[in-house]
Amino acid sequence: MSVSLDKRDQADVRDGEVRSPRDPATESGDAQLVFIGRIRSPWSLRNQCPKNMRQARERAPENCCLEIDPAWRPGLTGLAEGEYLHILYWMHHARRDLVLQKPRHRETPTGVFSLRSPVRPNPIAMALVKIISIDKGAGIVAIDATDALDKTPLVDLKPYFPSIDNSSDV
Amino acid sequence: MSVSLDKRDQADVRDGEVRSPRDPATESGDAQLVFIGRIRSPWSLRNQCPKNMRQARERAPENCCLEIDPAWRPGLTGLAEGEYLHILYWMHHARRDLVLQKPRHRETPTGVFSLRSPVRPNPIAMALVKIISIDKGAGIVAIDATDALDKTPLVDLKPYFPSIDNSSDV
Repeated sequence: MSVSLDKRDQADVRDGEVRSPRDPATESGDAQLVFIGRIRSPWSLRNQCPKNMRQARERAPENCCLEIDPAWRPGLTGLAEGEYLHILYWMHHARRDLVLQKPRHRETPTGVFSLRSPVRPNPIAMALVKIISIDKGAGIVAIDATDALDKTPLVDLKPYFPSIDNSSDV
Repeated sequence: MSVSLDKRDQADVRDGEVRSPRDPATESGDAQLVFIGRIRSPWSLRNQCPKNMRQARERAPENCCLEIDPAWRPGLTGLAEGEYLHILYWMHHARRDLVLQKPRHRETPTGVFSLRSPVRPNPIAMALVKIISIDKGAGIVAIDATDALDKTPLVDLKPYFPSIDNSSDV
């Protein structure tokens, strides 16, 4: 799944970064995910991907959508154009063993749980997107933007409720 | 993992609910999750749990916290009291095969992706919580409230950034 994990050692970390004594990529795991579809985006190479959703929106990409597999398409019932949706997706290229990380924009290493880095024990990314249109029969949800590589596996879609999801309302 | 899945059939759905032709609980899965710790809450029985985070806050519970396993505790570096945190947790008691569901508060069945029901193909719940205090060495993050059963497995913690997470700012 990940690239040449077996060749990694402490040399594969930046200055100040720290690996966990556990590497989930090599463990059998505590629970199983199924992929419910995939994200389609204009980004077919990793170095083309926006760094985050803010940068993704600035690039105003066209043709970003979610493709939902047939078994789960009835699950789109009740979603509507113009609404916001949380999407959870699986960063299948990301390593899973770095607890302290030093992104290029930070001066000092910081904990994985204070970062939105794809590198985390469970490489699930989360983004808030706006629904542009829905074709439930075809399982297609067009969205305003994404920072994800084309064909990134989808794990879940959740409606956005300001009363529980917006820090100024909770 | 789930309770008596093998005994379930169409009789186990409410009027208007629809099962998917796939049941992820019986599949080998596409990716593996590891649990990074657990939620501690005053709710030790499922029927004591608040229905959602709004109800959880109304009950003003004491002693809600996240217990992070030793391997991942350095990952708390950089988080601070008073900040908001998204937590992802695994609803290990939930079935995974209902695409159309009829919660008691809704008149008609609706799609799983327009609900925050724990019953979903990947039973990952998400909540926005406020950090009350952190003891990084002990791996304890006290939080303002939770709707989760005591000892619910944790999957991820992510910082909250209004510029990408608040629908009125994106």
